Amino acid sequence: MSQDIYQGLTQLGGHTEQPASPEEAVLERVPNPQADVDYAVRFTAPEFTSLCPITGQPDFAHLVIDYVPGAWLVESKSLKLYLTSFRNHGAFHEDCSVSIARRLIDLLEPKWLRLGGYWYPRGGIPIDVFFQTGDIPAGVWVPDAGVPGYRGRG
Amino acid sequence: MSQDIYQGLTQLGGHTEQPASPEEAVLERVPNPQADVDYAVRFTAPEFTSLCPITGQPDFAHLVIDYVPGAWLVESKSLKLYLTSFRNHGAFHEDCSVSIARRLIDLLEPKWLRLGGYWYPRGGIPIDVFFQTGDIPAGVWVPDAGVPGYRGRG
Amino acid sequence: MSQDIYQGLTQLGGHTEQPASPEEAVLERVPNPQADVDYAVRFTAPEFTSLCPITGQPDFAHLVIDYVPGAWLVESKSLKLYLTSFRNHGAFHEDCSVSIARRLIDLLEPKWLRLGGYWYPRGGIPIDVFFQTGDIPAGVWVPDAGVPGYRGRG
Amino acid sequence: MSQDIYQGLTQLGGHTEQPASPEEAVLERVPNPQADVDYAVRFTAPEFTSLCPITGQPDFAHLVIDYVPGAWLVESKSLKLYLTSFRNHGAFHEDCSVSIARRLIDLLEPKWLRLGGYWYPRGGIPIDVFFQTGDIPAGVWVPDAGVPGYRGRG
Amino acid sequence: MSQDIYQGLTQLGGHTEQPASPEEAVLERVPNPQADVDYAVRFTAPEFTSLCPITGQPDFAHLVIDYVPGAWLVESKSLKLYLTSFRNHGAFHEDCSVSIARRLIDLLEPKWLRLGGYWYPRGGIPIDVFFQTGDIPAGVWVPDAGVPGYRGRG
Amino acid sequence: MSQDIYQGLTQLGGHTEQPASPEEAVLERVPNPQADVDYAVRFTAPEFTSLCPITGQPDFAHLVIDYVPGAWLVESKSLKLYLTSFRNHGAFHEDCSVSIARRLIDLLEPKWLRLGGYWYPRGGIPIDVFFQTGDIPAGVWVPDAGVPGYRGRG
Amino acid sequence: MSQDIYQGLTQLGGHTEQPASPEEAVLERVPNPQADVDYAVRFTAPEFTSLCPITGQPDFAHLVIDYVPGAWLVESKSLKLYLTSFRNHGAFHEDCSVSIARRLIDLLEPKWLRLGGYWYPRGGIPIDVFFQTGDIPAGVWVPDAGVPGYRGRG
Amino acid sequence: MSQDIYQGLTQLGGHTEQPASPEEAVLERVPNPQADVDYAVRFTAPEFTSLCPITGQPDFAHLVIDYVPGAWLVESKSLKLYLTSFRNHGAFHEDCSVSIARRLIDLLEPKWLRLGGYWYPRGGIPIDVFFQTGDIPAGVWVPDAGVPGYRGRG
Amino acid sequence: MSQDIYQGLTQLGGHTEQPASPEEAVLERVPNPQADVDYAVRFTAPEFTSLCPITGQPDFAHLVIDYVPGAWLVESKSLKLYLTSFRNHGAFHEDCSVSIARRLIDLLEPKWLRLGGYWYPRGGIPIDVFFQTGDIPAGVWVPDAGVPGYRGRG
Amino acid sequence: MSQDIYQGLTQLGGHTEQPASPEEAVLERVPNPQADVDYAVRFTAPEFTSLCPITGQPDFAHLVIDYVPGAWLVESKSLKLYLTSFRNHGAFHEDCSVSIARRLIDLLEPKWLRLGGYWYPRGGIPIDVFFQTGDIPAGVWVPDAGVPGYRGRG
Ligand SMILES: [Ca+2]
Ligand SMILES: [Ca+2]
Ligand SMILES: [Ca+2]
Ligand SMILES: [Ca+2]
Ligand SMILES: [Ca+2]
Ligand SMILES: [Ca+2]
Ligand SMILES: [Ca+2]
Ligand SMILES: [Ca+2]
Ligand SMILES: [Ca+2]
Ligand SMILES: [Ca+2]
Ligand SMILES: [Ca+2]
Ligand SMILES: [Ca+2]
Ligand SMILES: [Ca+2]
Ligand SMILES: [Ca+2]
Ligand SMILES: [Ca+2]
Ligand SMILES: [Ca+2]
Repeated sequence: MSQDIYQGLTQLGGHTEQPASPEEAVLERVPNPQADVDYAVRFTAPEFTSLCPITGQPDFAHLVIDYVPGAWLVESKSLKLYLTSFRNHGAFHEDCSVSIARRLIDLLEPKWLRLGGYWYPRGGIPIDVFFQTGDIPAGVWVPDAGVPGYRGRG
Repeated sequence: MSQDIYQGLTQLGGHTEQPASPEEAVLERVPNPQADVDYAVRFTAPEFTSLCPITGQPDFAHLVIDYVPGAWLVESKSLKLYLTSFRNHGAFHEDCSVSIARRLIDLLEPKWLRLGGYWYPRGGIPIDVFFQTGDIPAGVWVPDAGVPGYRGRG
Repeated sequence: MSQDIYQGLTQLGGHTEQPASPEEAVLERVPNPQADVDYAVRFTAPEFTSLCPITGQPDFAHLVIDYVPGAWLVESKSLKLYLTSFRNHGAFHEDCSVSIARRLIDLLEPKWLRLGGYWYPRGGIPIDVFFQTGDIPAGVWVPDAGVPGYRGRG
Repeated sequence: MSQDIYQGLTQLGGHTEQPASPEEAVLERVPNPQADVDYAVRFTAPEFTSLCPITGQPDFAHLVIDYVPGAWLVESKSLKLYLTSFRNHGAFHEDCSVSIARRLIDLLEPKWLRLGGYWYPRGGIPIDVFFQTGDIPAGVWVPDAGVPGYRGRG
Repeated sequence: MSQDIYQGLTQLGGHTEQPASPEEAVLERVPNPQADVDYAVRFTAPEFTSLCPITGQPDFAHLVIDYVPGAWLVESKSLKLYLTSFRNHGAFHEDCSVSIARRLIDLLEPKWLRLGGYWYPRGGIPIDVFFQTGDIPAGVWVPDAGVPGYRGRG
Repeated sequence: MSQDIYQGLTQLGGHTEQPASPEEAVLERVPNPQADVDYAVRFTAPEFTSLCPITGQPDFAHLVIDYVPGAWLVESKSLKLYLTSFRNHGAFHEDCSVSIARRLIDLLEPKWLRLGGYWYPRGGIPIDVFFQTGDIPAGVWVPDAGVPGYRGRG
Repeated sequence: MSQDIYQGLTQLGGHTEQPASPEEAVLERVPNPQADVDYAVRFTAPEFTSLCPITGQPDFAHLVIDYVPGAWLVESKSLKLYLTSFRNHGAFHEDCSVSIARRLIDLLEPKWLRLGGYWYPRGGIPIDVFFQTGDIPAGVWVPDAGVPGYRGRG
Repeated sequence: MSQDIYQGLTQLGGHTEQPASPEEAVLERVPNPQADVDYAVRFTAPEFTSLCPITGQPDFAHLVIDYVPGAWLVESKSLKLYLTSFRNHGAFHEDCSVSIARRLIDLLEPKWLRLGGYWYPRGGIPIDVFFQTGDIPAGVWVPDAGVPGYRGRG
Repeated sequence: MSQDIYQGLTQLGGHTEQPASPEEAVLERVPNPQADVDYAVRFTAPEFTSLCPITGQPDFAHLVIDYVPGAWLVESKSLKLYLTSFRNHGAFHEDCSVSIARRLIDLLEPKWLRLGGYWYPRGGIPIDVFFQTGDIPAGVWVPDAGVPGYRGRG
Repeated sequence: MSQDIYQGLTQLGGHTEQPASPEEAVLERVPNPQADVDYAVRFTAPEFTSLCPITGQPDFAHLVIDYVPGAWLVESKSLKLYLTSFRNHGAFHEDCSVSIARRLIDLLEPKWLRLGGYWYPRGGIPIDVFFQTGDIPAGVWVPDAGVPGYRGRG
């Protein structure tokens, strides 16, 4: 039965401490209940926040993560705690975006994964970072993330 | 005459009980009146709702279903009743989305089928599920579903 | 001179009776004045209306028709009268959309034709129908129709 | 200290059963921590759902509730459970919208309260219900709810 | 009980013939179940259609009707049938818009009524008609209809 | 009967020469068929064009005209011909906008009239001109014209 | 004749040097050709730019200027040159916005003037400055400037 | 000279430690350089973040602050540091929003102040808090904040 | 030096008579200063206007022209004068759009050229014309023109 | 550690003079910390400004720069200073856009680079310039820039 796939989890359903850093965060996985077909899953985290490693000021990003699962799904509560754990962590935009993608790849061994990091402007010229493991697998549907470009003001 | 294709139906035009679960729902099909050409049909269900199997709280999704019919069309009233039958049914996002697509495939034996499940956020990070049976058949037009990404607030 | 291409027409420029049904409507064609190059023409009819063949209630659709002309262009006033002639005609969504496309194909013998029928929701789950005669011809530009998906309310 | 205002509550922070009907739902209130000034609070519930008392089919609404608290604030988790309790409850649009407003008035004795119920279309012509207890109190700011009108399709 | 207010109705719940003209349409009313307070009700009919009395060509309009009920509510199915009955009826924009409002006033004796008729362009310059019985009653909330202005193309 | 109000007209229904200048244009009026109540009528002309009196280059404007009729309505075809007659006429933005309003006032003797001229940018800083004969008459509804501000690009 | 009102001007129609500072800029006025009625004129300058007086970095603003002319209109080319003259001028947001308004008031002696300065964000928290000489004069129409609020990103 | 108004400041232009809590933050003020007229200043902070005092999870809000300065302007860098200091501070939505407004009032003694706190949804039903010190002063222009309502998804 | 490429031009920088017809218009070209790489240039003319050759009434279109220059660039002022010269010229939509593209091809001998003509509706059903000389050259970026479809009203 | 990649920089973190021209600007690079995978980085500069080399008037553009880094990343502060250095520099649209791209290519030796220059309209017909070094490298994700087309006004 499908609930069984959540049996080994340590965080879901109970009260969980907010991890203090990405290293402390425990990212968990569950078996893919539809593993005999290919499909894509998208997570959107519109309020990701970390710190600038030089100035200590907060940075903000809108993250969109798409993946085609293989044997595993990411457990969504652990993903949320992992993303929140960057709150007091210093990280550059390009490096941070790509490293989140790579940690998910290590955990999930997905057929494909893409991460878009749309960072809020600081000083007027925002940076976006677009990473994927290669072309979308043949026959799989992954709609465009559709995040609108930065327009300044007015 | 084209009305004749609806003759064997049990639900259309009469009063129909709302089925209490997906298992009870009777999904019906009618012959495709334009079966000698390929074309696509899209259904959009912006208020799909089911229950979280862990907490019992309602989940909401915006579903977009595209298919290229072969010999059969889905009868639209039965599709609506089937989708509504998830109202008191517990289901995980990934599993639920893919299983709806698979039930339609079993019934319709379409040339191609795609389902996008855009789930409303719970805790701030929504999940989308994108399934299709493979690439869009050659020569067929299926416009992008165009569902905008989640943007948080403000 | 280019006005000459309109000489054989029976409806343009004069007063014309509104045809009572699609069968009575006279769809006319004129020679393509730029027939030595390939290009595409789009008509958008945002207020197409017909009747439900079961209940007699009005249905509404937004139609987008694209074609790559060969020797002929459709005369636009006759197209308008033809589309308006469905006002009191009963037709199912899938059948009606495809049959309009086919009548235009019979008349125009175009190099390619596409019709999108975006029907308004009845009971909350609208149907769209997408038909084309095959892939867009090589080297021709046909922008996406860009009709937004149905979003419900709120 | 401000956390103390939540001490008498029965639902917040613990696991709570979903109430089966509006009558069973326990709507709770807490002391207003800024009771010496006037201000407004807005709740937006974009996925309210109830049943049609005639056909048993689900209805959906987007609700916007504004109020100017007096001595009491509504406790937000109990408000959420109350609104969710309409899920299997039959109610007409006009009656249902106004009765939710009145129950909140009974509980909170606010200086002012407004409720907008924007119901999704059934059959193409949606109903909106707008209720308030009178003019916005002098000197208080309540921005327009800004819910866009229904536009059909296309 | 609130269902009782629908007892005298002739159209709701049964099968109803589509009336052939506004004169044949039977507009019905039910007692206002919340008659001891003032509130507003909005109907939006985005696909109103009638005929031009001079040329016989179809006209289209987006109608928004707001009213503050007194003793009566309009029964929504009869309102829909009434509006649909203009489908083959000739009417000028200004005259037609105001006359619909006046028939509703005769039936409902509302505390206040407003009708906006936003007609689709013919020849590039659309006409809008705005009617109300006077200022919004004191203390009642009627949000702006918010229908966007016509913008031409491009 | 309402068609009779158009009997004295010289342009409607027949073929009409495009007037070569505003002076040559014949602006016509018909009796107001709902003269016993107050209501507003809006015309939107998104492609008004005239010439710059200094350089002879074309200017473009989006015009919105609202009025509350007294005894007369403007006949819409004559209004269109009048506006089109500015096509080869030199006029400054402020002067032109206000003079159109004044000619309509002379003809119609309306209870109230407003004209908004939203001129397209030339050199990056567009001019808008807003004229009305005074406050909107008490009890009449005239929604905001809602023309979006100029935003430049990007 | 209306062109005569431009006879005393020094900049319009000829080639003009770009003034190097606001002090050097010559702001000119012409007689109001419709001075016997009240109306409003709006200028929108979406690319105003000046320098930060502390850091020397460029600041950008979207300016909207509305006024009700008395005896004088501002000559639009001189206004454009005046605004462009801030390009290499250091100015704080609040001070700069209000001072532009005041220079126009000195020149034009308008019946009323309003200036909105919507400054682009620097460091994430933009400043807007809203100035007017008092309430809009009775009976004059000045639509809302409608500049959307800053939304950050995503 | 206008730069002089910044002479007493302790934070502007130098490197500043991020204050660890609202209590530690030093909110500074400068003399209003246009104190002889009334005008409004708006700050928009689209990424305000604090912690839930019960669960410790981050909350996000979009803040809009408008004020009409008297003798003082708030120094914008100190405002930014003050708002950022809530990053690890526990606060309820209603209480937090109103208390920020009150601290600004204590510092600035403005002629008027308004704060809108638009909190991101947690569990699907967001809370907005609207506070102002009373009606907008006569003759001052404060455009609507224009923050769009929460719409859920799809 | 790059200004030199403009030396042979007859219109740029001086005062130029508006040409009375497309035949009189002088379309000019300048050497491509970046001719050793491939890139695309887009012109957008949102207010193109010509006359209907049958009725003499004005037609309006939004034109988008993209090209990949070879040895030549079109001089933009001459392009503007050329487009404006259609103001009093009779032309059918399909014919006119394609012929503008062909005249540019004759002049510029571009590596590729595309023209989209989005004509304003007359009678409710607008025509768009899409022409290009073939597929976009390999390795060149030409974003979609993104002109929204016609939506009628409401 | 990742901060080390910034050690050789001359501008970051300290106070930096604004360079007076593109030639004076020092564009700097840092090692790519994720050089073993391919990904894309986007910069958006919505307020680029330069001068017209003929008239000296300011031009404005919205720039979008995408690149796939090889061994180097552009240091973002130096990029910002470089772009700002065009403020008093004369440049034609096509030439300027392509030359910025080429300077970045010289510095970064990227695997791929694209630059879109969307220039604000002058005289009503804006120019866009689209450059890239060839097709997007296989397997890399670069979303469309999504800058909306120019629409004129209204
Ligand atoms: Ca597979
Ligand atoms: Ca802008
Ligand atoms: Ca086939
Ligand atoms: Ca945001
Ligand atoms: Ca060909
Ligand atoms: Ca929805
Ligand atoms: Ca008070
Ligand atoms: Ca529509
Ligand atoms: Ca009352
Ligand atoms: Ca336009
Ligand atoms: Ca009256
Ligand atoms: Ca006056
Ligand atoms: Ca004052
Ligand atoms: Ca919604
Ligand atoms: Ca090449
Ligand atoms: Ca690689």
